[in-house]
Amino acid sequence: MKEKIQSKNLGVFDSGIGGLTVVSQIMKVLPNENIVYFGDTARVPYGAKSEQVIIDYSLQIANFLMSKDIKMLIVACNTATSVAIDALTAKFDIPVIGVIKPGARAAAETTKIKKVGVIGTYATVRSDVYSKEIQKIDPSISVISKPCPLFVPLVEEGWINHQVTKIIAEEYLSPLVKKGVDSIVLGCTHYPIIRKVIQSTVGNKIKLVDSAESTALEIAKTLKEKKILNTLNQTPNYQFFVSDFPHKFDEIGARFLGRKLENVKRVQLN
Amino acid sequence: MKEKIQSKNLGVFDSGIGGLTVVSQIMKVLPNENIVYFGDTARVPYGAKSEQVIIDYSLQIANFLMSKDIKMLIVACNTATSVAIDALTAKFDIPVIGVIKPGARAAAETTKIKKVGVIGTYATVRSDVYSKEIQKIDPSISVISKPCPLFVPLVEEGWINHQVTKIIAEEYLSPLVKKGVDSIVLGCTHYPIIRKVIQSTVGNKIKLVDSAESTALEIAKTLKEKKILNTLNQTPNYQFFVSDFPHKFDEIGARFLGRKLENVKRVQLN
Repeated sequence: MKEKIQSKNLGVFDSGIGGLTVVSQIMKVLPNENIVYFGDTARVPYGAKSEQVIIDYSLQIANFLMSKDIKMLIVACNTATSVAIDALTAKFDIPVIGVIKPGARAAAETTKIKKVGVIGTYATVRSDVYSKEIQKIDPSISVISKPCPLFVPLVEEGWINHQVTKIIAEEYLSPLVKKGVDSIVLGCTHYPIIRKVIQSTVGNKIKLVDSAESTALEIAKTLKEKKILNTLNQTPNYQFFVSDFPHKFDEIGARFLGRKLENVKRVQLN
Repeated sequence: MKEKIQSKNLGVFDSGIGGLTVVSQIMKVLPNENIVYFGDTARVPYGAKSEQVIIDYSLQIANFLMSKDIKMLIVACNTATSVAIDALTAKFDIPVIGVIKPGARAAAETTKIKKVGVIGTYATVRSDVYSKEIQKIDPSISVISKPCPLFVPLVEEGWINHQVTKIIAEEYLSPLVKKGVDSIVLGCTHYPIIRKVIQSTVGNKIKLVDSAESTALEIAKTLKEKKILNTLNQTPNYQFFVSDFPHKFDEIGARFLGRKLENVKRVQLN
């Protein structure tokens, strides 16, 4: 019986393909786990949508993943985590893990001077969840947030090392540097792709916190605690579902996942 | 009976609020007409979505507008026009007008050296509809297209006169200038908002063709031909529906419409 639960899938979703940076980390940390991913590429981006719409979409997707025999639900999207994690946790009785808490914990451990910057979409920044989570851990840490809405389209356009990306990074990030933060949370799954530009813009004294890695470690810890870690030494099975095949999907998907995307199917949730 | 048809609404839709630049022109050219607008703000942008998804969404929206007693359907979105106009025309028996044909006609009339540039989203450029329509009018005109995917997020971020917008415009548009076009079609309803930057980048010798204005004139012509022009000297009724109230909706909407947005309701189509 336990063996049966172990071999079930980790269900991971994102508003698009940015969540593949999280999948990439899970594959590294938990190479035995079977994964089923859903990217809502037909309705991406969630960043500027209202909270009710984001909750509706997240529940739809979670229902779809539940039909794929999953043992844990992972919200690999900062916007969906910040807005919909409570609704998801209330509705499903499997463990639900988002990217915010692990990122907040890593930030609280990283900052030496108790001054943390958070960058993300409008929805993530407005929801103020990173501040709340970080201050739950240590109320003396001050958190300064900054929306960086053009980073996602820049990454999707593939302008990773473009001068424009550098100028925009300068404009978005210089207020955080001026306010003297010593660490910045990359509060959007797209941002690790332009990590180098961000790092060179803020300088090497500021540490960047990538919540994808912290999330993968949190998943491993929870699987162990619940005794549902897949210890069978099998070849893992990866399934990818998207609501649309957008332009340059293969190219961008491979950039996020760090390997070729295979076994991808389109499904419509409406 | 005819009076009853006259006073029916013009049904206008777009993937978001960019189509309000078309509504703004219709209000100027046809001040007596009642208008009902639908902006699919929950699912914007359409630019990178697949053709099937764009067709599905367009049919959903058209069905919604049909329930609002419309006498004409106007697709105020280049992407939806380029991909879905045939499906819409086949399905409904009221006149269906898109932004492509009027823009193509205006471009064919504008170019003196028979060399036209077209800028738009990936979907519009890949569909190649502007070329096809322009060459139907005059096969000797050569058309060079260029996708400008970052223009939409820049407009929505409100970076209208920002140096970054200028640099990106330079990068996107210099190939068109080098190829010697003498007119450029603004093949996306967002682009009139950064018309000044585009004009100063390409220089004053190149004429910009804004299909919103040509579309409003085409609507007027068709209403007259079909004898369904609203000649009743009433105060027009404007209704706006959106699938979501996104961030900065009022601010951005007013920028596109050129006046305050009032009487806006949210509806869900799923």
